[in-house]
Amino acid sequence: MDKKLLSACIAAALCATHAGAALSQAKPETLVKQRQAVMTLQGKYFYGTLKPMAQGKIPYDAAAAARSAGYLDALSKMPWDTFGENTKDVKSSNALPAVWTEPAKFKQAQDRLHTAVAELVAATKGGNEATVKAAIGNLDKACGNCHDTFTKP
Amino acid sequence: MDKKLLSACIAAALCATHAGAALSQAKPETLVKQRQAVMTLQGKYFYGTLKPMAQGKIPYDAAAAARSAGYLDALSKMPWDTFGENTKDVKSSNALPAVWTEPAKFKQAQDRLHTAVAELVAATKGGNEATVKAAIGNLDKACGNCHDTFTKP
Repeated sequence: MDKKLLSACIAAALCATHAGAALSQAKPETLVKQRQAVMTLQGKYFYGTLKPMAQGKIPYDAAAAARSAGYLDALSKMPWDTFGENTKDVKSSNALPAVWTEPAKFKQAQDRLHTAVAELVAATKGGNEATVKAAIGNLDKACGNCHDTFTKP
Repeated sequence: MDKKLLSACIAAALCATHAGAALSQAKPETLVKQRQAVMTLQGKYFYGTLKPMAQGKIPYDAAAAARSAGYLDALSKMPWDTFGENTKDVKSSNALPAVWTEPAKFKQAQDRLHTAVAELVAATKGGNEATVKAAIGNLDKACGNCHDTFTKP
């Protein structure tokens, strides 16, 4: 088997076991656009609704908090398959090389985010305002933790 | 009560009853960026995964179809509160005036999308490949139905 064919087979095998089969064919610029779209929407629900509620800048609204938490639950799972190494040099990307040089730490930061979002979702279901606000604060730290290490300031 | 105070009270009352309390304060350009972010991500899961599966361009993957359907379930609910009239003249927007001149028809197009997504989610839970593929085709038409009337070609 020649080298090119071998590479193609490995790539095909990886694709077959990978969640987003078609995504592997997306252009690097498209992948960056997709992850930035996730950040825009996470910002909408976190900085536009949840954080100002926790800060008392807008009135606490249990239904809006639950809805935003639910959206973040879906959104927080969406960006990770767009961090292909082929996106390292895309100019519009704010990702630091640490994303690729420290994959274990990057995975840890993702896990921390998922845990914080799951706790927020649970808190909004419990209906206790103080618990929800504490979970929002905790999620804020999880966002900061990842951005401090893995994105350009 | 003077005019300014009255306006403030009306605005506060509207905010209190409005889902995205903080969103009413978002700049028009931000709202357009947020709805375009939703379209980018709907495109990721629909055109990047579901449609090519239905077309046989990539192998059918029941788990990936279910995950994409779940993401679309959340995403398809996100854009509507960004279509404020104050976004009508934002240059980067592709929305046609019909969004604001034909609100009932616009609402109908949203409802059709939500129904098509709900049917797709149900189909992916049922596990029948042909039903899932039919639901993907139906969702494709619901997307087209809205874009034909409400976005620039």
